[in-house]
Amino acid sequence: MNNFLATAVERIRLKKPLVHHITNYVTVNDTANVTLAIGGSPIMADDINEVAEITAISSSLLINIGTLNKQTISSMILAGKTANDIHIPVVLDPVGAGASTLRTETTKKLLSEINFAVIKGNISEIRTLAGFQSETKGVDASDVDSQQDDSKEVAKKLARETNSIVAITGKTDIVTDGQKVILIKNGTTALSKITGSGCMSGSLVATFCATFPDKLLEATAKAIMSMGIAGQRAFIRTKEYGTGSFHIALIDEISKLNGIILEESGDFDEE
Amino acid sequence: MNNFLATAVERIRLKKPLVHHITNYVTVNDTANVTLAIGGSPIMADDINEVAEITAISSSLLINIGTLNKQTISSMILAGKTANDIHIPVVLDPVGAGASTLRTETTKKLLSEINFAVIKGNISEIRTLAGFQSETKGVDASDVDSQQDDSKEVAKKLARETNSIVAITGKTDIVTDGQKVILIKNGTTALSKITGSGCMSGSLVATFCATFPDKLLEATAKAIMSMGIAGQRAFIRTKEYGTGSFHIALIDEISKLNGIILEESGDFDEE
Amino acid sequence: MNNFLATAVERIRLKKPLVHHITNYVTVNDTANVTLAIGGSPIMADDINEVAEITAISSSLLINIGTLNKQTISSMILAGKTANDIHIPVVLDPVGAGASTLRTETTKKLLSEINFAVIKGNISEIRTLAGFQSETKGVDASDVDSQQDDSKEVAKKLARETNSIVAITGKTDIVTDGQKVILIKNGTTALSKITGSGCMSGSLVATFCATFPDKLLEATAKAIMSMGIAGQRAFIRTKEYGTGSFHIALIDEISKLNGIILEESGDFDEE
Repeated sequence: MNNFLATAVERIRLKKPLVHHITNYVTVNDTANVTLAIGGSPIMADDINEVAEITAISSSLLINIGTLNKQTISSMILAGKTANDIHIPVVLDPVGAGASTLRTETTKKLLSEINFAVIKGNISEIRTLAGFQSETKGVDASDVDSQQDDSKEVAKKLARETNSIVAITGKTDIVTDGQKVILIKNGTTALSKITGSGCMSGSLVATFCATFPDKLLEATAKAIMSMGIAGQRAFIRTKEYGTGSFHIALIDEISKLNGIILEESGDFDEE
Repeated sequence: MNNFLATAVERIRLKKPLVHHITNYVTVNDTANVTLAIGGSPIMADDINEVAEITAISSSLLINIGTLNKQTISSMILAGKTANDIHIPVVLDPVGAGASTLRTETTKKLLSEINFAVIKGNISEIRTLAGFQSETKGVDASDVDSQQDDSKEVAKKLARETNSIVAITGKTDIVTDGQKVILIKNGTTALSKITGSGCMSGSLVATFCATFPDKLLEATAKAIMSMGIAGQRAFIRTKEYGTGSFHIALIDEISKLNGIILEESGDFDEE
Repeated sequence: MNNFLATAVERIRLKKPLVHHITNYVTVNDTANVTLAIGGSPIMADDINEVAEITAISSSLLINIGTLNKQTISSMILAGKTANDIHIPVVLDPVGAGASTLRTETTKKLLSEINFAVIKGNISEIRTLAGFQSETKGVDASDVDSQQDDSKEVAKKLARETNSIVAITGKTDIVTDGQKVILIKNGTTALSKITGSGCMSGSLVATFCATFPDKLLEATAKAIMSMGIAGQRAFIRTKEYGTGSFHIALIDEISKLNGIILEESGDFDEE
């Protein structure tokens, strides 16, 4: 198995890329800390009067619609267009797309105005974007893992239509550019028992892509694999304590990741 | 002593109720994590363009005014009315009512437009709502435990006037439907040394009530008792470390709660 | 060496000053918890309709521009003027000043309308305020420690111009009233690997100044020294685990600080 981007984390820590986040207020502290833990430098800014300038000094942009409001939608579009203009990767985390008209319509608008390097979501969200019928229960996936073969096709279709890397997180994570598919089996169900593991994955994707803008498929896969491996290691350390300790240990383990751990623990297939 | 709702936590974990939060940005991560820890599924959404849809797919609604702003007041009212229309419980946490005119007036407006299943606050807040004179020092209670007999009457009066369950948290927690009173002696002063223990109690109340909408008095009491017991257990584990560790252990202990722990540790009287 | 304010923490815990925060949504939970950990009582409120009332019942005001938006700028000015009117200290944390026009212009406006007791930032931010040329990379300092002798002059100049205490945090922290300079060598690079250590320092400064409004230079220095010492102690406890554990241990150690620890561990020079 090809150990792609073997020293990815080490190179992130040398580059310390600035990652502009326009994100929700629920998990924003975690996403900032995870960006730092993997070696990036987070900046959170969402006012329409500064987002273009902030994007312009950044190495990637993450748009997460977790707590969407009218004010930030126009900031997302302006920042996204700026990022497209200066050719830095833009990552979309369409949290809860399908759960409300506002989220679904906003996601459509974002997709029509911005070229995304990567779109990352659970199967409900990605299915919504791909135009399939799917019922979203809140911000969690309602049918994760139930139709994995179909999921792969959904991901590939959306990737081809949007010319983006598409990642579906679940028991097996799927990352595709529309042709090649990487299936990642790392992870733990403990990740679904804290809020923000999906958002933190998004920050990792944005940080990896900031560092490897020419290898978006591999960078996205490595980012998602990093979250899975950190989750496994954190769960081993904390299973007797509970979800609060797991949450903290997850950030610990991301801060301790390196090429050796990723090589030893990575569990993936390429198709 | 009647061990009401003996398997409440187990049933929450089977149902995984979606709990719509319109809440403050200070403790929102904790309230989401606590909702997950007890077995619910939190969704945070406050934009006027989506709150009705989000409430409509939820099993309860929590309104917490901890960082009130003009935008969210109308969202609170719309969500609250939607919840009333579809007959799911609405919980009010009137954080800092009495501390500013905005908070006091907003609370009045919410009470006049929405039927609350439960109103939970400290004695200063509840006294403000009950129309008694009370001086609120910031968002903390200024006279908790000083007039407990009177507190019981304040709680009963507000419960009868609003047709809600009223809970006053303090050294002894008081939960009443206006007739019956449950007094809960669980808890620890360590809970007052971190931010958000009151907000997290509110999330537990909303999650228990989502699961037991026909037993609101008992569900509210059990939720508040759960926070007290988790606090006691967390404090034992972390007292030598400090308040950061207590905060994390509190979430741990909520994630570990079950019917046996609650039966063994519950300390309450019914009047 | 003069052990200024030997029992500062003990006196904060007796007074429990209410500290009004208008701050960012990234680190707001940490700043609230740190204010509690040192013995103060935090209140977060930023709506224009309540900030004047909240400031009026507080013992100090902290303005942190970490996630600036149009709505809160006018709240900052109203709260700041109210604080000036009632003679309570106002602390400015100009996060990211220099990184965007909005932040730089807002900082200028705040400086022109409000008398700040203390201005605390990293060298990039303080240099921006002092009118020197400096390039800010995001919200982190781009040239911390590179020109320390010059930093001292920058701090003194800004202190004299604004009639404020000026604090520059870095490897060696500089605190000055424009004449006297206190250099603090406590701290650890681990503080730069989590988000919010600067914001938490700001909360400590506001809490110390709330308690010692007549000794602003010493109170500011002691607050910043407290963060450095807590960081050193937290790092020793957690270096094998990672940045998540460090973050929690930092709050632990602040909650455990006392006059004896500060006296034994304080490492500073006065000029």
